[in-house]
Amino acid sequence: MTNAANNAEMFCENVRLSENRDSVFIIDQTLLPAREVYLELKSLEDFYEAIYMLRVRGAPAIGICAGYALAVLGSKIVCSDSDEFFLRLREIKERINSSRPTAVNLSKALNRVENAALSKSGQGFSDIIGAMFRESAAIQAEDIEMCRMISEYGLTLVKSGYGILTHCNAGPLATSRYGTGLGTLFLGKEHGYDFHVYADETRPLLQGARLTAYELQKAGIDVTVICDNMASIVMSMGKINACFVGCDRVAANGDTANKIGTSGVAILAKHYGIPFYVFCPSSTIDFDCASGKDIVIEERSEDEIGSLFFREKTVPEGVKCFNPAFDVTDNGLITAIVTEKGICRAPYCESLGALIRR
Amino acid sequence: MTNAANNAEMFCENVRLSENRDSVFIIDQTLLPAREVYLELKSLEDFYEAIYMLRVRGAPAIGICAGYALAVLGSKIVCSDSDEFFLRLREIKERINSSRPTAVNLSKALNRVENAALSKSGQGFSDIIGAMFRESAAIQAEDIEMCRMISEYGLTLVKSGYGILTHCNAGPLATSRYGTGLGTLFLGKEHGYDFHVYADETRPLLQGARLTAYELQKAGIDVTVICDNMASIVMSMGKINACFVGCDRVAANGDTANKIGTSGVAILAKHYGIPFYVFCPSSTIDFDCASGKDIVIEERSEDEIGSLFFREKTVPEGVKCFNPAFDVTDNGLITAIVTEKGICRAPYCESLGALIRR
Repeated sequence: MTNAANNAEMFCENVRLSENRDSVFIIDQTLLPAREVYLELKSLEDFYEAIYMLRVRGAPAIGICAGYALAVLGSKIVCSDSDEFFLRLREIKERINSSRPTAVNLSKALNRVENAALSKSGQGFSDIIGAMFRESAAIQAEDIEMCRMISEYGLTLVKSGYGILTHCNAGPLATSRYGTGLGTLFLGKEHGYDFHVYADETRPLLQGARLTAYELQKAGIDVTVICDNMASIVMSMGKINACFVGCDRVAANGDTANKIGTSGVAILAKHYGIPFYVFCPSSTIDFDCASGKDIVIEERSEDEIGSLFFREKTVPEGVKCFNPAFDVTDNGLITAIVTEKGICRAPYCESLGALIRR
Repeated sequence: MTNAANNAEMFCENVRLSENRDSVFIIDQTLLPAREVYLELKSLEDFYEAIYMLRVRGAPAIGICAGYALAVLGSKIVCSDSDEFFLRLREIKERINSSRPTAVNLSKALNRVENAALSKSGQGFSDIIGAMFRESAAIQAEDIEMCRMISEYGLTLVKSGYGILTHCNAGPLATSRYGTGLGTLFLGKEHGYDFHVYADETRPLLQGARLTAYELQKAGIDVTVICDNMASIVMSMGKINACFVGCDRVAANGDTANKIGTSGVAILAKHYGIPFYVFCPSSTIDFDCASGKDIVIEERSEDEIGSLFFREKTVPEGVKCFNPAFDVTDNGLITAIVTEKGICRAPYCESLGALIRR
């Protein structure tokens, strides 16, 4: 793994296949914002370590990285026949897949690239490798297109000059180009829109301060970081015209699970009469989940709250911390849910259902 | 300055005159909660440094410490006559007063103790010293009594078993025994009440995580620290029966300035139908201030947000932070304002006005 030169394009392509197609460049997200280090991943262990250590994070970004990894490593297999090739390819795939076993995008992407190879199994080695690179590029291209469509719809909801409040990070670092919750801001910037963004720092892990602020600054978008408890005062000062968030799961009735604190932002927005928008791929809508009550909230380590990045103690020894990673925003607080297939509004049971029939 | 042994009483008397009346013990608040260090202040420079460096903080606590300081240091003056004594006393007073020039309790306490000495100027040295110690003890006793009365009124608003959400720190560390916003919890504990407290950590300086959790743990009150953005989820889970906060200034119409984030908690409480109580001495009500619009909000250093305790950067270099230290909670969001003279409810223009006529 070697450090690569800074690349202006890289902030919006945080995972990128090298021109020689023998390595993948990523930005090491664990070091942001203090250090901006690009890594060139070449070996199986390079890829495994980068995913396992969250150097590349965000389910779509992990999937994209894994797809390229399998193509790159597959192209380097030295073997005597086709059977040996597919055996070796399967070993590589399983090793990468074990880096974060619960990330569904990871296994989906690996399966797609392996299947692309298998579809050419009777053909020459170069055809097989070519199919793998095409499939991995398609995964990234589909993500970019999905984010672009979400952002196009988002752009119909805002005007240049708007003040936007964001919570957590749903930008290019977690996806590919644009992102979901932040995509409208990047696309708007390309179209000459002027935004003034207030980014909630998003305790405990500060994805807003560290990642959202980093992405917006790179794109030349005006951004100010605030502590989560300052959202109320900036809304009361008239600085916010809309709130933008991504999400992890949408229930059939529109209740939305997202990073902890999202529901509080939505309640404040309603109090101050500010629109609250959720941005997500339509694949995030879970029709098997009737309402937010059915969404299980992951509880994470108390140490994330009780110490500053696991170093200095900020909570007395022996005092409990409660650390839910997500909360559920009631559908009645959501102005609209913006997907790549269109914009849904209340009543969500109807509008979300209509979406999948498109 | 020497470290003193831990003392079970000290958590509720964070400033205490020694039995020999030749020193003052304080707990060093800058080291909490990681280290619990008691300091014995003896010399003028000991006292100056402790106040200047915020080892003792909270306006009432500073006043109590300064009152004792002047009595202790006054009793050690070696001089030939009364004129020289009062000259030396004035020098000591001015040096202590310069440690935090804007803290009104500091100069008020010093003036009270000096005036007590001056009232005995024709009498013997032991009478003068005795008057100073009586006055400094009275300052502390009045604070304890004021906090106790606030807490007695507060106790009429709660039941044993209540879940209480707190924001920032308005406990014994900032005052003397009990505190204002937290006093009801300590007094209730003495009466056998069982509370379950969720303490907002209170970014950026974490007074809730560091100080409120410390005080409640010491008193044996069940406390769980949460990030500020988790207040919504704990309310939605039915864990909170009332919110308790202190305050820095109350306008004549009941609008209340307090630590940043307080207004957000109040909006969430209203959304979830949870009572929101403000606790303060009646001296905090500013009748010259018609409404919250007249309260100027102090803006503090961006570094408090942009780095973890001024060490590790958490916000990209060059990205702005907005760091208001306080916000204003609209009177319509406040269920009651609890003072040592009684409980005020809306309409506050009437109820607060009636209070001072008592």
